[in-house]
Amino acid sequence: MEPTMHQIWKRVFQHLHKTFILPKRNHSGCAEHTAAPPSGHSRYIKPTQRVSRLYQPSNLHDVGQASRVAGEMTCKSQRLMQQAGLIHPSNPGCYYYLPATVRSMEKLVQVIDQEMQEIGGQKLDMPSLCSANLWQTSERWDLMGKELFRLKDRHGADYCLGPTHEEAVSTLVAQQPLSHKRLPLLLYQITRKFRDEPKPRFGLLRGREFYMKDMYSFDASEEAARQTYESVCHAYIQLFKRLGLQCIQVQADTGNIGGTLSHEFQLAADIGEDQLLVCGNCSFSANVETLSSDGTDCPQCKTGTLVESKGIEVGHTFYLGKKYSHIFNTTFNNAQNKPTVAEMGCYGLGVTRILAAAIEVMSSEEGIRWPGLIAPYQVCVIPPKKGSKEDKAAVLAEELIHSLEGDLPGLKGEVVLDDRTQMTIGRRLKDAFRLGYPYVVVVGQEALTETAKFEVIRQQTGETVFLSKDGLLDLLRNVETV
Amino acid sequence: MEPTMHQIWKRVFQHLHKTFILPKRNHSGCAEHTAAPPSGHSRYIKPTQRVSRLYQPSNLHDVGQASRVAGEMTCKSQRLMQQAGLIHPSNPGCYYYLPATVRSMEKLVQVIDQEMQEIGGQKLDMPSLCSANLWQTSERWDLMGKELFRLKDRHGADYCLGPTHEEAVSTLVAQQPLSHKRLPLLLYQITRKFRDEPKPRFGLLRGREFYMKDMYSFDASEEAARQTYESVCHAYIQLFKRLGLQCIQVQADTGNIGGTLSHEFQLAADIGEDQLLVCGNCSFSANVETLSSDGTDCPQCKTGTLVESKGIEVGHTFYLGKKYSHIFNTTFNNAQNKPTVAEMGCYGLGVTRILAAAIEVMSSEEGIRWPGLIAPYQVCVIPPKKGSKEDKAAVLAEELIHSLEGDLPGLKGEVVLDDRTQMTIGRRLKDAFRLGYPYVVVVGQEALTETAKFEVIRQQTGETVFLSKDGLLDLLRNVETV
Repeated sequence: MEPTMHQIWKRVFQHLHKTFILPKRNHSGCAEHTAAPPSGHSRYIKPTQRVSRLYQPSNLHDVGQASRVAGEMTCKSQRLMQQAGLIHPSNPGCYYYLPATVRSMEKLVQVIDQEMQEIGGQKLDMPSLCSANLWQTSERWDLMGKELFRLKDRHGADYCLGPTHEEAVSTLVAQQPLSHKRLPLLLYQITRKFRDEPKPRFGLLRGREFYMKDMYSFDASEEAARQTYESVCHAYIQLFKRLGLQCIQVQADTGNIGGTLSHEFQLAADIGEDQLLVCGNCSFSANVETLSSDGTDCPQCKTGTLVESKGIEVGHTFYLGKKYSHIFNTTFNNAQNKPTVAEMGCYGLGVTRILAAAIEVMSSEEGIRWPGLIAPYQVCVIPPKKGSKEDKAAVLAEELIHSLEGDLPGLKGEVVLDDRTQMTIGRRLKDAFRLGYPYVVVVGQEALTETAKFEVIRQQTGETVFLSKDGLLDLLRNVETV
Repeated sequence: MEPTMHQIWKRVFQHLHKTFILPKRNHSGCAEHTAAPPSGHSRYIKPTQRVSRLYQPSNLHDVGQASRVAGEMTCKSQRLMQQAGLIHPSNPGCYYYLPATVRSMEKLVQVIDQEMQEIGGQKLDMPSLCSANLWQTSERWDLMGKELFRLKDRHGADYCLGPTHEEAVSTLVAQQPLSHKRLPLLLYQITRKFRDEPKPRFGLLRGREFYMKDMYSFDASEEAARQTYESVCHAYIQLFKRLGLQCIQVQADTGNIGGTLSHEFQLAADIGEDQLLVCGNCSFSANVETLSSDGTDCPQCKTGTLVESKGIEVGHTFYLGKKYSHIFNTTFNNAQNKPTVAEMGCYGLGVTRILAAAIEVMSSEEGIRWPGLIAPYQVCVIPPKKGSKEDKAAVLAEELIHSLEGDLPGLKGEVVLDDRTQMTIGRRLKDAFRLGYPYVVVVGQEALTETAKFEVIRQQTGETVFLSKDGLLDLLRNVETV
């Protein structure tokens, strides 16, 4: 078994205590000098890996102003993401996702792809423009009311922008013969969705445009469909485990999607809009909407007491039965080659919402902390201030990046150089703290000593160690990347 | 230097002539027997790598019917893609992209990312909902007429679905201080775009929903902007070269985007909607729209004659100057810290259009041929028919896939097993021919001989060779993947 990060850090610390350890750096700033000439331009580092060139327009002192202008309520993740140049507000409930966010989102999409494909999911991509006919057939054209963005094309035909695609996928599968041998069929997409929220707020947590993974399953029987349902729930739990997020699966209401069985996947958070009741005694947990009585006794174990909690919904699963497949005649050919209506399920994950929710639950008020696997960059290397007495170490910083990228294939493109060397190390450390790179490596005075050491800060835990280049390579070799 | 595929094949052939070579297989079918018991279930092969489980609803005999129903004109790529289960029509000009297409598109996106990031491009993601205000400011709200999909939100505010994002990106960059040190700034996105085409047709070549890469550049001076323009054109040429597509860069009209300099990137094709004039003597080539005279003399070299050609536009570049940056006050701070209006360029690539155009120009009327780099799968392995006399070879097919995936990291997830063993090898070869896997490996009779050989068909050239397992590994080790 691979050692855990915790074990590696423990080992590193033990090793250090045997050799030498330096006092924790005072992060408020470093001495400034203007002696040595500026170091030459990088031979190794692409523009897109230099912090001075990254398009991440920080707004670190302008707390929440942009959001107040847009008249939206703010929360920690929204404030931190806007301050750090991860998102920029556009129309109400719509954001520009800036480059660091796109990097993080692409990693999250990869993790989701892996987990969905592991259980047999096949990825497709359905049109955003959904014909009114389809939605009238399912009666959701009226049911969805103002939440649906509606438009007409140049010929006057009515469309909506799909917030979910039960109608579209049911009619797709209905249009081709489907053998029972191909079941369970799991089709999913990760695309931009639209919902005209009455009150868009909390940044990416409740927007009008957002990315969602929506999966749809087709099975031959109720029993098979429930097995598929279980396997998707299991994949969701696995996904959040890999992200290091504590997720609870709670019994949920089926809302306007329909069906008979439903669960939400919730991250506990004070700003969560869902009220949950969790039993202190057994595994029971439910959205308060699903419980009819006002009592606090657990309906499952009968002895435990239900405790209130607030959650951010990051996933939702529905066993749909034949609700849509019946309407759209979505059939498969059974073993006797007889068309039979399929049993369906549908399963959503809020992709942009998971990003924001992870930041919401993991970060402090002052700085972003990412699930390591999906951090935009894994490592930020900070060379000395230009003209300082340790300026000579600048070249070591670039060589270090070259070694990291060369020796550790998993870190390719994952290391940035904070080349804003007109700023003190301390000032750049503050920015690095706010942006939450999992690892920050300071190449300062210690790098120039005989036993050249780099200061390494693991931001998720706040630990700081001084490591030789080999020690640093050993440490970073174990960083998990997608 | 890496050997080219042609050199590798040559080497393989030379090697074979030295050893032994078998006659070309008759692909019309194989002898059928029903002797041996069916082979057991796969130990190695995931459901998503078994052709019997892939959601690729083939419609191989129903030529063009679906498109005639939808009232659209068809072309070769549309017909082939629908027949092979790559796309399925939805509303006019809107398609479901089925799983094989999504795989191909994701590879194409990776190649585009590589080329754009190589020249310093940073990827972001802008909202699809664009406020009418922005488009009124640039006067394109009226100018675009019926091509713009327009809608109102629940509060009555006007939006359009962005077909292009000059307004959105100009206003984004205008809202944050930008130092001249950060220039050239190249921002791009690869997102779904919307355009209400009067006559959607030709499948993915002219749709109402499509994926586009749109990049925007910001520079300090006209000279710098022209250099950036050149570097993007160069990246486009490089991209098409990697895809093995012959692309011509032609002088173009600036249309409603505006600006003073523009080029189209065209693939020559009979169904192309653009009329080009290409000089037989010099490098001059132009869209006929840009030439005022009706003459056939080349305006550049004066001696050559212009020859007519038809092309499919797959990319378009515009040098915009200050057209948008002036309107939206998109400035940078120059060396004297004085706000200065930026010089802009914009650069489009039709992502879904490149897919379809590549199929259009590379395929025969009967079967799809892909640019190898972006084929949905690289290799299809065909085991013997169940119950045939070579049925015993079935287990060798699965072991082969296991070896390929284990020994050749580049082929991970790239090999499928056509496990529809109720069908003859010949019948499955026909499907493989239509779908255009770059390599098809038949595990038949020859695999059971002492000098076990696999029949390998390189579909892009039609060549067939018989190779040992080691020979096959050597051949496929050189397949280029993203």
